[in-house]
Amino acid sequence: MTDKSDIEIAQAAEIKPIREIAEKLDIDEKYLDLYGKYKAKIDDRLLKDQKDKPDGKLILVTAITPTPAGEGKTTTSVGLADGLSVIGKKACAVLREPSLGPVFGLKGGAAGGGYAQVVPMEDINLHFTGDFHAIGAANNLLAAMIDNSIYHGNPLNIDPRKITWKRCVDMNDRQLRFIVDGLGGKANGVPREDGYDITVASEVMAVLCLSSDLSDLKKRLSKLIVGYTYGKLSEQKPVTAGDLHAEGAMAALLKDAIRPNLVQTLEHTPVIIHGGPFANIAHGCNSVIATKMGMKLADYTVTEAGFGADLGAEKFLDIKCRKAGIHPDAVVVVATVRALKMHGGKAKNQLGEEDLQALKEGLPNLLRHVSNIRDVFGLPCVVALNAFPTDTQKEWELVETECRKHDVKAVLSEAWAKGGEGSKVLAQEVVRLCEEPNHFRYAYELEGTIAERIDQIARIVYRGDGALLNDAAEKEAAQIERMGFGNLPICMAKTQYSFSDDPKKLGAPEHFKVTVRSLRVNAGAGFIVALTGDIMTMPGLPTHPAAENIDVDENGKITGLF
Amino acid sequence: MTDKSDIEIAQAAEIKPIREIAEKLDIDEKYLDLYGKYKAKIDDRLLKDQKDKPDGKLILVTAITPTPAGEGKTTTSVGLADGLSVIGKKACAVLREPSLGPVFGLKGGAAGGGYAQVVPMEDINLHFTGDFHAIGAANNLLAAMIDNSIYHGNPLNIDPRKITWKRCVDMNDRQLRFIVDGLGGKANGVPREDGYDITVASEVMAVLCLSSDLSDLKKRLSKLIVGYTYGKLSEQKPVTAGDLHAEGAMAALLKDAIRPNLVQTLEHTPVIIHGGPFANIAHGCNSVIATKMGMKLADYTVTEAGFGADLGAEKFLDIKCRKAGIHPDAVVVVATVRALKMHGGKAKNQLGEEDLQALKEGLPNLLRHVSNIRDVFGLPCVVALNAFPTDTQKEWELVETECRKHDVKAVLSEAWAKGGEGSKVLAQEVVRLCEEPNHFRYAYELEGTIAERIDQIARIVYRGDGALLNDAAEKEAAQIERMGFGNLPICMAKTQYSFSDDPKKLGAPEHFKVTVRSLRVNAGAGFIVALTGDIMTMPGLPTHPAAENIDVDENGKITGLF
Repeated sequence: MTDKSDIEIAQAAEIKPIREIAEKLDIDEKYLDLYGKYKAKIDDRLLKDQKDKPDGKLILVTAITPTPAGEGKTTTSVGLADGLSVIGKKACAVLREPSLGPVFGLKGGAAGGGYAQVVPMEDINLHFTGDFHAIGAANNLLAAMIDNSIYHGNPLNIDPRKITWKRCVDMNDRQLRFIVDGLGGKANGVPREDGYDITVASEVMAVLCLSSDLSDLKKRLSKLIVGYTYGKLSEQKPVTAGDLHAEGAMAALLKDAIRPNLVQTLEHTPVIIHGGPFANIAHGCNSVIATKMGMKLADYTVTEAGFGADLGAEKFLDIKCRKAGIHPDAVVVVATVRALKMHGGKAKNQLGEEDLQALKEGLPNLLRHVSNIRDVFGLPCVVALNAFPTDTQKEWELVETECRKHDVKAVLSEAWAKGGEGSKVLAQEVVRLCEEPNHFRYAYELEGTIAERIDQIARIVYRGDGALLNDAAEKEAAQIERMGFGNLPICMAKTQYSFSDDPKKLGAPEHFKVTVRSLRVNAGAGFIVALTGDIMTMPGLPTHPAAENIDVDENGKITGLF
Repeated sequence: MTDKSDIEIAQAAEIKPIREIAEKLDIDEKYLDLYGKYKAKIDDRLLKDQKDKPDGKLILVTAITPTPAGEGKTTTSVGLADGLSVIGKKACAVLREPSLGPVFGLKGGAAGGGYAQVVPMEDINLHFTGDFHAIGAANNLLAAMIDNSIYHGNPLNIDPRKITWKRCVDMNDRQLRFIVDGLGGKANGVPREDGYDITVASEVMAVLCLSSDLSDLKKRLSKLIVGYTYGKLSEQKPVTAGDLHAEGAMAALLKDAIRPNLVQTLEHTPVIIHGGPFANIAHGCNSVIATKMGMKLADYTVTEAGFGADLGAEKFLDIKCRKAGIHPDAVVVVATVRALKMHGGKAKNQLGEEDLQALKEGLPNLLRHVSNIRDVFGLPCVVALNAFPTDTQKEWELVETECRKHDVKAVLSEAWAKGGEGSKVLAQEVVRLCEEPNHFRYAYELEGTIAERIDQIARIVYRGDGALLNDAAEKEAAQIERMGFGNLPICMAKTQYSFSDDPKKLGAPEHFKVTVRSLRVNAGAGFIVALTGDIMTMPGLPTHPAAENIDVDENGKITGLF
């Protein structure tokens, strides 16, 4: 255990030149573009050049339904990659890039924690190699071209009230959620209602993360729907980025952003960090290119998906894996005793007390996620019990016993306190699982109606009594099917705090229906977003933003970041 | 002469690894952070470590009053640095970074032209090393913190109608010039009038470019005035970034952006490119750190200033040199026969014809700029006549003869067609001038009132009959002086197309007064902006934006950029 903050641990660590890390993965120098001494971009053409090389094993790290107590998916992922290295495997982690917004809002890192961190953590959390800014620029170029086209005579007949494309910025800025722009008279645009999203919510982010290469990226960008023409619902036509001839310039802006970034753990295990779409209105995983690159370069690639397994793993498997033609060889479901006790009804301020009853009552949440992974998706699975100082031996034993009853192994993970050494047992179990029979299948196929697929997810994955589309959503479904996008996979935008669409229903709720209020097609990314409630796509800052405490000294050393 | 476009010439060129370019300047590896193979950032601590090393010579490239015919300042600067290398000098150019906005708007590069270019030009024109995005993020973090403070009870008593700090984006997006944000009800901010500038117009850009190091940057950021408190003009107090505790996080966002970028010319002469503030509402030169770095590393450093010498050189000398404690050893005034004919009354579509009369009538513009450099600022000066294919021998001879009469040498510069070889004669003259006596002085001192200093600039530099402040500007001057900022240098925001404030008065107009409509203090940058008319700080896109023709192929090769 340690009294040091994450940034203190990270800054005290020895960090190796990134070339040495690249050598561990046998990356030829010609594919490497350094960004300073400790970061590099890997040329995406490596994938094409090595397409005949067999893939390594892929391990997905997912988690129980999140609670304010935290689970530690990234910490476990980083520790697991280190643990695999400790037991002599050629391993890497492939993770998402953090957004600037939360860094300045509430404290909380996105590069692991304790002794299972990725470094240089300050750089990773602040701009990194500029990918998110490039995505923002591509997004905002398209926005400027939309309004410019309307301003110059509106040749595409775009209805300014039906523009769906928003501008974005990588910042928590609630003031921009709802705006009116184009004010100031004739020379200054056309007045209309508009708004901003945070960059990670941009469809450009989802597109970048699902593209197989630069050509595919450009094709997807050209399909982005930015709004609709004037006319009745049945007459209106989608207007795309391609109609505006924007995809070439957007792709040019993204030519470096499409290349995955190489960094290292505190123990010098290679980590590829690339892309970070929202986990609600998008699919919440790092890029396909990065994951595939990991699988080409390492024998064991550890990756993660956002939120709990009902959302993160489901989208990882049904959207990302389906598009990429890959699937995991093993899945790790992360849980903590503290969080399980919350699922069992324990109050947040009492989680430090041993409570076997609450723990037992919370376990069905974990076991349902485990069952989904094994029985729905057909994948080998292990539970990683992320250790906390307040956990008791009896609590750990209870989790292990109950898991054993359900034929899944629960392994204590001490990644936070001990890094790779604390993750050895988990690593060994993962290696064993990767050799087990794998019966991977999707939770749903792409046939049938949109409503049917959503209903399937609600029944099979959430274990509820199906899904209802309200009137608006039904009309939208009909329009999406009419436009020819009816057979895309579904991206569920549901609360992450419950299997149901009610964030208060913790544990393993039953007998509920999921209500879909709105549907939206992301034709570039290639999925249909099903919104079950209000999803915040532009966060705000708290009364005292973390930014107030962040500082940098004359040597560029940053403090107060976490 | 060549039929190839700039991008074709640039892409056909052999480009050397940036380490080899760094070696030419004897930059120790420890100061170098690579950004790919052909770009690097130079650690700003190099300046501190080498503070006892004597400075090399500094050459300022400026120009006649710009016309639509173009002058070619950057091309001449790049060619001159190459020419100095050709004649055996250790030389470098220090230039501004281009903004993304114009790249997608009208065709036109910002990395030189023909055989006098800086490469990799695509990267330099698209994001480069991310400096402008970092500046935008720092600017927009501050904006978010202002509105967040108002939202959470407004403890600083900020009057939302008097916020002067705008958000920014590096994009030509007229739709954002005037907006109302904070709409959508209580949870979504406080409704107010707002607007966006293009990133190069942000005061953060000017601050970065005038800072001596990271500590100075932070100090300046804390002084940024973001708005004023409630109350009458005489009672209201400025609210600063320091009051919001934003300067630490903003500086953290800028820790890499403060480091100058190293690239190369087509002939492998080192070029440092760093910063690029607007030349109207800001001072229009690259960063102080970059210029000083050039002077430490090279024996001859060529730099440029925006617009004509009345604005660009004046601000370079009176603002930047005053703050940095440096001054040029020689000044190059760039002119073209075509532009001089326009100053002499020739129509734009007839510039291809020989017209000695128009040329002669246009020459007073050039000669007035030359006189300013020599007689007002006391600096050695040469005229660079940037050759165009349609120029005639007689026209060149006329310029040379008239210049000789006024005791200044005019040298033909063939940088565009022949690179360094075409710039040798200019280079030799510059080397000679650097050994001449230098009587540098500012156009004005910092004593007296704001009105007096503006009047001095109008009389001494513009050669008019002085300046008038209208009522609003007089009140603003009084307020600025009351706040204690009365003795800052003046940044004139005047049309670049005339010595006067009337863009139609070409040549060397006389008997005019300059009217100042508004004054604004940039307390972080440390100058007072005097606005003589409407200055556009957010450009728009044309009917057919250049973006429509930009493309990138599957190997990342960009076309249509210029």
